[in-house]
Amino acid sequence: MDIEQFRKAGYQAIDRICDYYYTLQDKSVVSSVKPGYLRDSLPVEAPEAGEDFQKIADDYQKFIIPGLTHWQHPSFFAFFPTGCTFEGMLADLYASSTMNPGFNWACSPACTELEAVMMDWAAKLLGLSPEFLNTSGIGGGSMQSTASDSALIAVVAARSLYQRRHPSVTQSSLVIYTTTQTHSLGLKAGLILGLSVRALEVTWEDKFSLRGETLRKALEGDEREGKKPFILLATVGTTSSGAIDNVSEIGAVTKDYPDLWVHVDAAWAGVALSCPEYRETLHLNAINEHAHSFCTNFHKWGLTNFDASTLWVRDRKYLTDALDVTPPFLRSAEGDAGTVIDYRNWHLALGRRFRSLKLWFVLRSFGAEGFRDYIRRTINLNNIFASLVSASSVLSLMTAPSLALSVFRLDPKSASLNSTKALSPETLNDLNRIYYARISARKDILLTQTVLNGAVCIRFAVGAARTEEVHIRKAYQLLSEEGKLALEEWTKAGQNGNV
Amino acid sequence: MDIEQFRKAGYQAIDRICDYYYTLQDKSVVSSVKPGYLRDSLPVEAPEAGEDFQKIADDYQKFIIPGLTHWQHPSFFAFFPTGCTFEGMLADLYASSTMNPGFNWACSPACTELEAVMMDWAAKLLGLSPEFLNTSGIGGGSMQSTASDSALIAVVAARSLYQRRHPSVTQSSLVIYTTTQTHSLGLKAGLILGLSVRALEVTWEDKFSLRGETLRKALEGDEREGKKPFILLATVGTTSSGAIDNVSEIGAVTKDYPDLWVHVDAAWAGVALSCPEYRETLHLNAINEHAHSFCTNFHKWGLTNFDASTLWVRDRKYLTDALDVTPPFLRSAEGDAGTVIDYRNWHLALGRRFRSLKLWFVLRSFGAEGFRDYIRRTINLNNIFASLVSASSVLSLMTAPSLALSVFRLDPKSASLNSTKALSPETLNDLNRIYYARISARKDILLTQTVLNGAVCIRFAVGAARTEEVHIRKAYQLLSEEGKLALEEWTKAGQNGNV
Repeated sequence: MDIEQFRKAGYQAIDRICDYYYTLQDKSVVSSVKPGYLRDSLPVEAPEAGEDFQKIADDYQKFIIPGLTHWQHPSFFAFFPTGCTFEGMLADLYASSTMNPGFNWACSPACTELEAVMMDWAAKLLGLSPEFLNTSGIGGGSMQSTASDSALIAVVAARSLYQRRHPSVTQSSLVIYTTTQTHSLGLKAGLILGLSVRALEVTWEDKFSLRGETLRKALEGDEREGKKPFILLATVGTTSSGAIDNVSEIGAVTKDYPDLWVHVDAAWAGVALSCPEYRETLHLNAINEHAHSFCTNFHKWGLTNFDASTLWVRDRKYLTDALDVTPPFLRSAEGDAGTVIDYRNWHLALGRRFRSLKLWFVLRSFGAEGFRDYIRRTINLNNIFASLVSASSVLSLMTAPSLALSVFRLDPKSASLNSTKALSPETLNDLNRIYYARISARKDILLTQTVLNGAVCIRFAVGAARTEEVHIRKAYQLLSEEGKLALEEWTKAGQNGNV
Repeated sequence: MDIEQFRKAGYQAIDRICDYYYTLQDKSVVSSVKPGYLRDSLPVEAPEAGEDFQKIADDYQKFIIPGLTHWQHPSFFAFFPTGCTFEGMLADLYASSTMNPGFNWACSPACTELEAVMMDWAAKLLGLSPEFLNTSGIGGGSMQSTASDSALIAVVAARSLYQRRHPSVTQSSLVIYTTTQTHSLGLKAGLILGLSVRALEVTWEDKFSLRGETLRKALEGDEREGKKPFILLATVGTTSSGAIDNVSEIGAVTKDYPDLWVHVDAAWAGVALSCPEYRETLHLNAINEHAHSFCTNFHKWGLTNFDASTLWVRDRKYLTDALDVTPPFLRSAEGDAGTVIDYRNWHLALGRRFRSLKLWFVLRSFGAEGFRDYIRRTINLNNIFASLVSASSVLSLMTAPSLALSVFRLDPKSASLNSTKALSPETLNDLNRIYYARISARKDILLTQTVLNGAVCIRFAVGAARTEEVHIRKAYQLLSEEGKLALEEWTKAGQNGNV
């Protein structure tokens, strides 16, 4: 493809993306394709001769678009949102056009420099302590691919620090602390590193938040048994229910356990720290005081295209002491002089994409004000949904709404059944499995399920940039109707003997 | 930014990328910016109000472009090339426009399906055994971010397999084998996982290739000492000199050591397997017979924009047994039924970018033929360079050229000096440090240094898609002149007493 062919294909791509967004809300959220659909449509190997790009671009429309789940659809309420803005797309395009692996300062100074500045912009937007800024010269931030990577890096750095302090401790006695509500990234870090993971219990009464006393008891118990807990993966905004670990209480405990690294994973909720009114709820002061590392994903609820996981550490040496490898072919005058950041020593791999460009475009185009407006608007939309559920005769909130996330279930109040007897937990779970199966069979809306201390629940996460109040109300209506139909289905199946 | 504003900004981005490529060869390869240049130019925090996108796009041209090292410049001969094609850019744009984290089949079927098919296309292009195809149902391939990630995954899978077979073995006795020429990814995997790394010696006489006997002796010695080598990171095409470990001999040894996982890292050279004439040199048959896992980076010498590291395993269960974590919110009907691949269990993180689209666009637009033409053309260009160096009175090749990589140094033949005495190794190193300092001070060309068994050398890697013979000849001329100037500088400094 020569330059003029690229111009033509590029204009067309832009036009087709415009068409996609003009028609997005008329599409189904969920694809109807069956497993194997694409393999059946494509040749078994690459063509021998090059093909005309027009054919390739048309095949993208024909074969790929119908196989996508439309995460930007206004009726997408599953998982958490994935950022996707025009600003992010343009940044990805520009970054891709001058591709380089950005592993040290010299190999493309702009990439390192912009990342260092953007991490400071982001830290200030969220109200992080100046200790986390790159300008501090001690702490600092870098952009990772995902919150899993960020947590893995934190665990590696924490293990390295712990082992330097306690050289005689073997890996087999090390323990990673999570809670029963921590994202699977905790367990996966343990699997990858071959380390034990202990999930601390959290309770419904505490809104699934890790309390200081639980942590203290665990530490005391493990100490007695010779175990060495060296990191706690605390969560501010869990995936299942948006629960917020009590970082303030955790911090009070870790004063007595200075070897315990506190990583705060706020992958989803962290961007809400941009709004001062949520900082207390999200324990910002305690994060600033106690966290060794803090992560949030701008590529979730932060308007930035995947991948843009921002990770800050209180001391950059934690990372470089754990990860620095400098063979001759990676040495540079600037790196040797220590005057620049070589981000390759701040993450797992060597090469890295030019991710900060997306954040620059997004933060400038929206402005801090526009960014906060978006966060507040989505929280408000979720509050509307939560109010509707609260007033429902068949649906119940399972926890108080957390920011832009609600967890609810089908839970018919007595009036809707010919009985005043409460349903047993097992029956309610059976009923909700039927309910979720009905919802997930639909193509015009998408939600995901979860299990909270044994209770089958459904998550409703707001955040797609095009979601408006009308979509929330439509979703509620649809979910109510499906609830009633699920009850009918369940009643017909004769399974109401438990009532 | 609304849809029509995006159309305008998108057209402009396309036009500006066209301008970039029309003018690329008139630019310096290397940026002239100084550390901190960007921080001095940007505000200390995000603007409060959103800014006009035109200003942002203009600032990209003003602040970012001048701070880039131009990896696509025809006179870029450093490191290894990074793929950057118009096809790749368009794929990145399309993928970014419907952003989703693609972690399992259901969350966007097209992403998983295309990746599964593209990995098979790529495997066939390279001549990999059918055992590595996704259609085998046993082996399979997935796209990772970098060769470091791929190697780390291989080590984790190998460790997990070894520990399942030998549950009583502790992590502290496990050893990762590399060679002294292995990329830093080997040492970094050890750092990350807290495992020992043993770098086996390779010699100049063997062209820095790991031989079977070296491996056998190491295994025997470690066995006697109770160490447990569980993986060998073999390299086909090392970074320093393009050395190729003797996978055939390695395979013969591992028949006696079935617990040793063989990972073949062909990050750079692997794409040359597309050309049948290189398959013997690159030990394709032995890879197909003996490798547990194989990696090459299409984002290096394979015309595909970063990131596109292709990793194949002979048995996908090696990965899923090591990495599968399935919390309730990630369960899906298709995943539970086992009818689809859930790629999240084939890599370290959860979310993943839609990387396969780039490979689809590239392989179709170039065709297998066009892909091979490009590989052959770059090898040919390197051969031209190597011939020129061979005939030089001041430069010498340090190893036979390996595919598109030459390693050389300043090594004045007696005729050019007023002496017939050979220079000592230390003197030659001093001289080459002066030489490389001169080269790296230039902005119109970029090469990187390395050290081969103590000898300071310079690498010349061909691969930027716009490099033509004229750039090779110009580079040779420049390098010869700098060589003569370095000799003069060294002579003037009175350091020729050693001659």
